[in-house]
Amino acid sequence: MKIIEGGAASAKGFSAAAAAAGIKYEGRTDMAMLYSEKPCHAAGTFTTNIVKAAPVKWDQDIVYHHQGARAVIINSGIANACTGEEGMRICKETADAAAGILGIPADSVLVASTGVIGMQIPVDRITKGIGLLSPALENGKEAGNRAARAIMTTDTRPKEAAVQIEIGGKTVTLGGMCKGSGMIHPNMCTMLGFVTTDACISKELLQEALSENVKDTYNMVSVDGDTSTNDTVLLLANGMAENPEIREKNEDYKAFCQALDYINRTLARKIAGDGEGATALFEVKIVGADSKEQAVTLAKSVVTSSLTKAAIYGHDANWGRILCAMGYSGAQFDPEKVDLYFESRAGKLKIIENGVSTGYSEEEATRILSEDEVTAIADVKMGDQSATAWGCDLTYDYIKINADYRS
Amino acid sequence: MKIIEGGAASAKGFSAAAAAAGIKYEGRTDMAMLYSEKPCHAAGTFTTNIVKAAPVKWDQDIVYHHQGARAVIINSGIANACTGEEGMRICKETADAAAGILGIPADSVLVASTGVIGMQIPVDRITKGIGLLSPALENGKEAGNRAARAIMTTDTRPKEAAVQIEIGGKTVTLGGMCKGSGMIHPNMCTMLGFVTTDACISKELLQEALSENVKDTYNMVSVDGDTSTNDTVLLLANGMAENPEIREKNEDYKAFCQALDYINRTLARKIAGDGEGATALFEVKIVGADSKEQAVTLAKSVVTSSLTKAAIYGHDANWGRILCAMGYSGAQFDPEKVDLYFESRAGKLKIIENGVSTGYSEEEATRILSEDEVTAIADVKMGDQSATAWGCDLTYDYIKINADYRS
Repeated sequence: MKIIEGGAASAKGFSAAAAAAGIKYEGRTDMAMLYSEKPCHAAGTFTTNIVKAAPVKWDQDIVYHHQGARAVIINSGIANACTGEEGMRICKETADAAAGILGIPADSVLVASTGVIGMQIPVDRITKGIGLLSPALENGKEAGNRAARAIMTTDTRPKEAAVQIEIGGKTVTLGGMCKGSGMIHPNMCTMLGFVTTDACISKELLQEALSENVKDTYNMVSVDGDTSTNDTVLLLANGMAENPEIREKNEDYKAFCQALDYINRTLARKIAGDGEGATALFEVKIVGADSKEQAVTLAKSVVTSSLTKAAIYGHDANWGRILCAMGYSGAQFDPEKVDLYFESRAGKLKIIENGVSTGYSEEEATRILSEDEVTAIADVKMGDQSATAWGCDLTYDYIKINADYRS
Repeated sequence: MKIIEGGAASAKGFSAAAAAAGIKYEGRTDMAMLYSEKPCHAAGTFTTNIVKAAPVKWDQDIVYHHQGARAVIINSGIANACTGEEGMRICKETADAAAGILGIPADSVLVASTGVIGMQIPVDRITKGIGLLSPALENGKEAGNRAARAIMTTDTRPKEAAVQIEIGGKTVTLGGMCKGSGMIHPNMCTMLGFVTTDACISKELLQEALSENVKDTYNMVSVDGDTSTNDTVLLLANGMAENPEIREKNEDYKAFCQALDYINRTLARKIAGDGEGATALFEVKIVGADSKEQAVTLAKSVVTSSLTKAAIYGHDANWGRILCAMGYSGAQFDPEKVDLYFESRAGKLKIIENGVSTGYSEEEATRILSEDEVTAIADVKMGDQSATAWGCDLTYDYIKINADYRS
């Protein structure tokens, strides 16, 4: 597996573009288009929130009931959630406009939105934007990067990853981009993620690879415990790498899954590290668990604890809050057997052993917790299962961003 | 039911005292004692966190297996949680010291602690404190208030309530105090709550009255979603009102339960309004629910949403976050049927109808949300069940308090 610079327009036959359509933001790009020369198998995972944004419903219909996806139209600024029938109509008008200008069927156009809930998108700006996007489509990392910037809301940096593998003597490329900073507690997938590949793989295995992988990647991220109405991950495969089609769970499938895992894991970590107001990526590893479910429950409970997140912001080794968050998670374990470590580039320190303090140095702990990526590792000594969750610290800026997000 | 000024030392035969024992804080009282002239029936509800503080385990043993409680010794500053066997030994030494000085059995002494997790309590200061507390015991509202102040940690004000009812021609008094500001997401009961009454009531009904009532009161409060290791509510009844003993669920029991509900509801609201860093009490009412469980799930999900709490701090009618939090709660409902209102002393405003905006005035909404007690009311139009949850806004000061709580 070769990590390359790139993103959603790096695989063969995929192009991307960005445009400033003035939907809500001024002076920045706020629309992106992804396009594939050839029809794609599309896989998708979507929010489990009962309140589903209109684009989520639109995409579910396309992914589940239609073949040959060709394009994705994305806007930032307005989420098109809680917008009733008019919201669905806007999805259709968006797809129709893109279909017309690109000369493809409307049911091959996926749409995605992110931003404020409850406002209607001015559809004339969307159609204007599509007019700007279509002639600007380009393959390659620059175009992919422009698209990754256009889909940002409170994100402070674009989030991309790309990788190449060999399958049957052919080079297969996977590349992706995502956005997400607040209202991040994905349940099925993150806010918005787009992965493109030229791999030749059956639609069934493409969906299975994605559905399995999001459990360990996007679904293990939490910025604030709020599962969005718009969470969507789309994975498009256009087959242009010309590898022998992956139709069964063989070595090729395994290689594809590993590459997909790299992309999704990298993007998931980038979302956590760029959580609203965050100064640090906070990683929580549970080891020695009895079952995978137990490990996941414990890791997620710690990574979403407001008190723990505030302590991470303060570089404070307040381990009692971590043990407390494990305790109320709902998972069973013996608190008097737990060992806990803090780790970062600055070192690794055992903080508690069998549930009580080791008498560690607070200075040393604070030094370790002052890095911009910090990890808490809890060993519950019950078995050999583990899980990793990613979040961030809880800061003044999170409040600042969210106390008056709409103005 | 007559609401009176008072607290945990208002019922007949109960006295309270406060002392500065120097356990962790300087220049303030940090220990309290409650004492009953006569042995009490004791009821208790305790944290469901697997990580239970030593005093929780101590009190569970007393409440479940011993008769005739006489005293409660409470300290603030150190929680005596995650303290292993030494923590249990400190509970025993505390009870022994109090038993010795008060001339009562050690198994009639309840203990409670609140503060930092993981530190050991210096037991010599506890015994010194008990020596100061015992001669200072007094009945009445002043003594009760001193005790309510001594048990505060990050609380900004003492929290008390008292009420009188008539049962069988006798005046029965109930009074209580509680503390709680951070790590507040009670599951069984709040951080620390103490209710005393001179009612004559069987131990079984006393426990049942408490267990039922905490579900609608303390368990509906959330400051930050973190269920503490120390949550404890104790209800002591010494029978000194000399009313005919309440042994069955008759009118007298009903009157007692109503009075208890007043005390617990008042204290629960006080906890929410004094949440760490809070500028406003945030009340969430779900009406028109299909079942009580559905209403509770929806109300709790909204009241714990970080994004909603930050919007309340910003006086921002960001209703999409409320609908979003209802959507990911796990409860089933039709988002396109929901009506939502904001209400406060400044008025009441319908914000959404059948899931979409009413086109309300943002200025009017902000005016309503600028009060220090604000309510969101969501009607899901499925039935006649309802629930109310209490929380607070999420502010810069919450971060400030928790980024470096230990120093």
